[in-house]
Amino acid sequence: MTPLYTGIIPPMITPLTDRDTLDLDGLEKVIERMIAGGITGIFALGTTGEAPSLSYRLRRELVDRTCKIVDGRIPVLAGITDTSLVESANFAKDAAELGASAVVTSAPFYFPAGQPELREYLEQLLPELPVPLMLYNMPALTKISFQKDVVNWALDQEKIVGLKDSSGDFTYLKRMMRLAAPKRPDWSFLVGPEELLAETVLMGGHGGVNGGAILHPRLYVDLYEAAMAKNLEEVRRLSDQVLALSGDFYSVGQHGSAIIKGIKCALSLLGVCDDFMAAPFHRFHESERTLIARHLETHGIR
Amino acid sequence: MTPLYTGIIPPMITPLTDRDTLDLDGLEKVIERMIAGGITGIFALGTTGEAPSLSYRLRRELVDRTCKIVDGRIPVLAGITDTSLVESANFAKDAAELGASAVVTSAPFYFPAGQPELREYLEQLLPELPVPLMLYNMPALTKISFQKDVVNWALDQEKIVGLKDSSGDFTYLKRMMRLAAPKRPDWSFLVGPEELLAETVLMGGHGGVNGGAILHPRLYVDLYEAAMAKNLEEVRRLSDQVLALSGDFYSVGQHGSAIIKGIKCALSLLGVCDDFMAAPFHRFHESERTLIARHLETHGIR
Amino acid sequence: MTPLYTGIIPPMITPLTDRDTLDLDGLEKVIERMIAGGITGIFALGTTGEAPSLSYRLRRELVDRTCKIVDGRIPVLAGITDTSLVESANFAKDAAELGASAVVTSAPFYFPAGQPELREYLEQLLPELPVPLMLYNMPALTKISFQKDVVNWALDQEKIVGLKDSSGDFTYLKRMMRLAAPKRPDWSFLVGPEELLAETVLMGGHGGVNGGAILHPRLYVDLYEAAMAKNLEEVRRLSDQVLALSGDFYSVGQHGSAIIKGIKCALSLLGVCDDFMAAPFHRFHESERTLIARHLETHGIR
Amino acid sequence: MTPLYTGIIPPMITPLTDRDTLDLDGLEKVIERMIAGGITGIFALGTTGEAPSLSYRLRRELVDRTCKIVDGRIPVLAGITDTSLVESANFAKDAAELGASAVVTSAPFYFPAGQPELREYLEQLLPELPVPLMLYNMPALTKISFQKDVVNWALDQEKIVGLKDSSGDFTYLKRMMRLAAPKRPDWSFLVGPEELLAETVLMGGHGGVNGGAILHPRLYVDLYEAAMAKNLEEVRRLSDQVLALSGDFYSVGQHGSAIIKGIKCALSLLGVCDDFMAAPFHRFHESERTLIARHLETHGIR
Repeated sequence: MTPLYTGIIPPMITPLTDRDTLDLDGLEKVIERMIAGGITGIFALGTTGEAPSLSYRLRRELVDRTCKIVDGRIPVLAGITDTSLVESANFAKDAAELGASAVVTSAPFYFPAGQPELREYLEQLLPELPVPLMLYNMPALTKISFQKDVVNWALDQEKIVGLKDSSGDFTYLKRMMRLAAPKRPDWSFLVGPEELLAETVLMGGHGGVNGGAILHPRLYVDLYEAAMAKNLEEVRRLSDQVLALSGDFYSVGQHGSAIIKGIKCALSLLGVCDDFMAAPFHRFHESERTLIARHLETHGIR
Repeated sequence: MTPLYTGIIPPMITPLTDRDTLDLDGLEKVIERMIAGGITGIFALGTTGEAPSLSYRLRRELVDRTCKIVDGRIPVLAGITDTSLVESANFAKDAAELGASAVVTSAPFYFPAGQPELREYLEQLLPELPVPLMLYNMPALTKISFQKDVVNWALDQEKIVGLKDSSGDFTYLKRMMRLAAPKRPDWSFLVGPEELLAETVLMGGHGGVNGGAILHPRLYVDLYEAAMAKNLEEVRRLSDQVLALSGDFYSVGQHGSAIIKGIKCALSLLGVCDDFMAAPFHRFHESERTLIARHLETHGIR
Repeated sequence: MTPLYTGIIPPMITPLTDRDTLDLDGLEKVIERMIAGGITGIFALGTTGEAPSLSYRLRRELVDRTCKIVDGRIPVLAGITDTSLVESANFAKDAAELGASAVVTSAPFYFPAGQPELREYLEQLLPELPVPLMLYNMPALTKISFQKDVVNWALDQEKIVGLKDSSGDFTYLKRMMRLAAPKRPDWSFLVGPEELLAETVLMGGHGGVNGGAILHPRLYVDLYEAAMAKNLEEVRRLSDQVLALSGDFYSVGQHGSAIIKGIKCALSLLGVCDDFMAAPFHRFHESERTLIARHLETHGIR
Repeated sequence: MTPLYTGIIPPMITPLTDRDTLDLDGLEKVIERMIAGGITGIFALGTTGEAPSLSYRLRRELVDRTCKIVDGRIPVLAGITDTSLVESANFAKDAAELGASAVVTSAPFYFPAGQPELREYLEQLLPELPVPLMLYNMPALTKISFQKDVVNWALDQEKIVGLKDSSGDFTYLKRMMRLAAPKRPDWSFLVGPEELLAETVLMGGHGGVNGGAILHPRLYVDLYEAAMAKNLEEVRRLSDQVLALSGDFYSVGQHGSAIIKGIKCALSLLGVCDDFMAAPFHRFHESERTLIARHLETHGIR
């Protein structure tokens, strides 16, 4: 058995024209741009998708429209992370009905659960899900990590099919891959931070859920393929480009929101979609926009 | 002008019989017990109310039932804290319609906003609110604090009527009271951690939103009144009792959830309501229950 | 039995003219200024004294000179906090020989010890000390707190005579005072952050080790006395002044070092001593100096 | 120009028989065991060497004895990390005189310095050093990281020759390598956590300062060489062994001290040296010792 999800599966931004209005035209362009670049799946409603900041109504609309635009060409994974198990389960059902291939959840993130509590949460959630589940490790925002015992339990659940790790802790990711190796050759291990895509694939992982791939999908697909081909020279060259890209685009403005703002701003400059951001964030001002424009030029992104 | 909200306004627990079912009988008993103890308001759907873990449907039902049971005897404040401004505003409208006197919000808590972003968030939320707003500072769970500039802005907004501080940082609370003194004598400053109720009132604050007051309202009301009367001997004596109570009841079991679990378990032992907890938590096991029973006896709580 | 150390015991700054040279004239003026203001002890070589940044040679010289200047008028406590038990014990012996009445230690601060390890550390250190020991809780810089079990053990050690708490967590301090009450009426509970001096004394503590008292000793002594006299109106008025003072003087410049820099700069402007700072810090620049000068005027400090 | 320090340079433990007594026989055995395993340098008095817990007298003795035993076969680097610049400079002079080839410093670690302050600290320290300096990034224990601006400045200082990174943040390490690439091909980039040794060398770094190499030097040397040879299959196989080894040996007992305790305990079981630990730590008890013995067997370490 081989992993279901491999390659580059970008954490799609959610194009908005207003607080509760999708930029439908922009959405189509974002999706087609990524598919043209060789991506192998879309992760909608993750952190980069500003999911927690959106109304449930808009989240449903987004999954609906995304699945219609994609039209079966690649799988669509939908984020269902929530603080309420009931709302999470409800949304999973909606997403599956609207066409999502799988759902993705990180830990409930208001109360910091203990590990046994986190496991029970997943135990209660799992039977409610009509499609496979991918775990999403995001301790910086959820306050807790999926640790060894929880992952070991998850490896015994057929409906759980992989782990997306955004901890930035590569040792953690490697340890989880070691846990899974003898049990679940079909699990997908995907890395969030694009700066670790090369190492993840070189060391046996299956791909990346990388924000930069929304902007420049081909670069990430090429890096993934070079790593799969064990072409170390090419890996170093492309990895260096990825480091330069993320270093440039994600350091305009401060705060964690800089990543999402940078991507949306760049897409807006490229004429792809609106850069409206859901509260508590807002789009870049002119000075930051000028910097992003310069970075687009430097990196030859069109 | 004097503050709208003073005295003891407990952060009511949400009695449940199941994941998405209110314990209606228990709710009535909890409310009557607190009112009989002399409280001057109820804060529904705060942290102790497990609000983020509940479905919106149940949250609406809770506000509805609470307002009907209270029937105007004291004000009901409803928590609207959310990660989505749209959902927060929607719920505020529902809560006001159902009878809430005011709404309470902490910062959006998935993405850690910067201070200017937090202010803009409130600026956008405020016009949507049909009733007054109280700020709720809870940095341990929301990742950010309402700092000086945001509070200074808030002091200029007529619709914002106070600050509930659960930071545990008494210096912060005093600094915010100093900011408000020349501008808004009508603001309410309420403290979350009951261990700081005495000092808050002695130094000019207006009361507490203290979990222990759900269990033993009279003790907290007495302490509040002793502090208002500047009876320092009585303050020390009662404050010591509060310290003993919180030290005992909140240290059974580990994790932050111990506080809510302890209160629900005690209420269940007293025959007040069910101790079912929303995921990711669960009620205490027998061994912890025995400890809580012993503490009820020690403290003479019936 | 009554506590050995009560009242205002400032954490004296270390006046320097160079990296490894004491400002002897400044030292005398600092000490006389504080004694004239009514202080009841001096804590040399604490955090405000930049102790960890100084050579052992200079630390010995400082204790020597301080004891000679003080000449028995008030007790001198010497900080011996270290990462090495051997160096800590050696320095305690030196300090005692040079005239220190007691020594003060926080936790070893490179490796974060567990609580049992912290207790063993103290168990090993204690027999080496020729004078009484005061514990110094400073978790923000040492990474760990003296928790309940360690303090309980310490309460059984005759040679340990009190706790200075700089955690800023007033609930912690009150819990420790409750632990001690039935066992050690002779323990001194002193609070570090001056913003909590009023509450500490009102609730049964014995005084403060407050940086601002180096600059304006009389204000802190007055506040201490008002709190001892249970004069709540006066306490609120003076406490407000202390909040204003610390808010002004400690917020010039960023970083934790702002407190020490602010105090040294103010003393230099007053002609008391040099404001040279040991690495990694450096004195304020002209723009910050101007702000501090303005604050001196506003607060009428001469 | 090529980097001065490459390959495996273990952070040697400090064998003790008592609080202030070196285990001289053990020291010789530890060193010979490592050299026989193919290491290319020794880093004495780092974190694993418990340096901050030792007296200066013993630190000098350790450098002296180590240099005599090594007798020029490989370079000896000596840690001079301190909170006091004066003591750090003094010790650097001693270490150089006793035969150390280079010194290593992390940030002063009591006060958390800002980045400009950290740079000034290094600026003042550098002229005092008679031998080259390697930076040691250890933010978990020093509270701050050597960030971009400081490293950029360091790249212009001839006397600074590399960076040992123990942050565990591989993206950080790669970014620093990118900064250095155009300027200082002679800088050594060494990684602390052994779990990242493979990736570090694959992506252009020069080796590791890995605790496990004290115990099983050959494994780490083999992994380093496989990575240099770009033999990806062998890298994965050996990297997996390293992960297993560190996962086993460093998870006996809790707290950060588990790593040092595990290594010392294993060496003691192998008859290499005493496992006495400097306060605040202590050697493993029998039950933990049994586990370590089992791991030695599993991993075939003799």
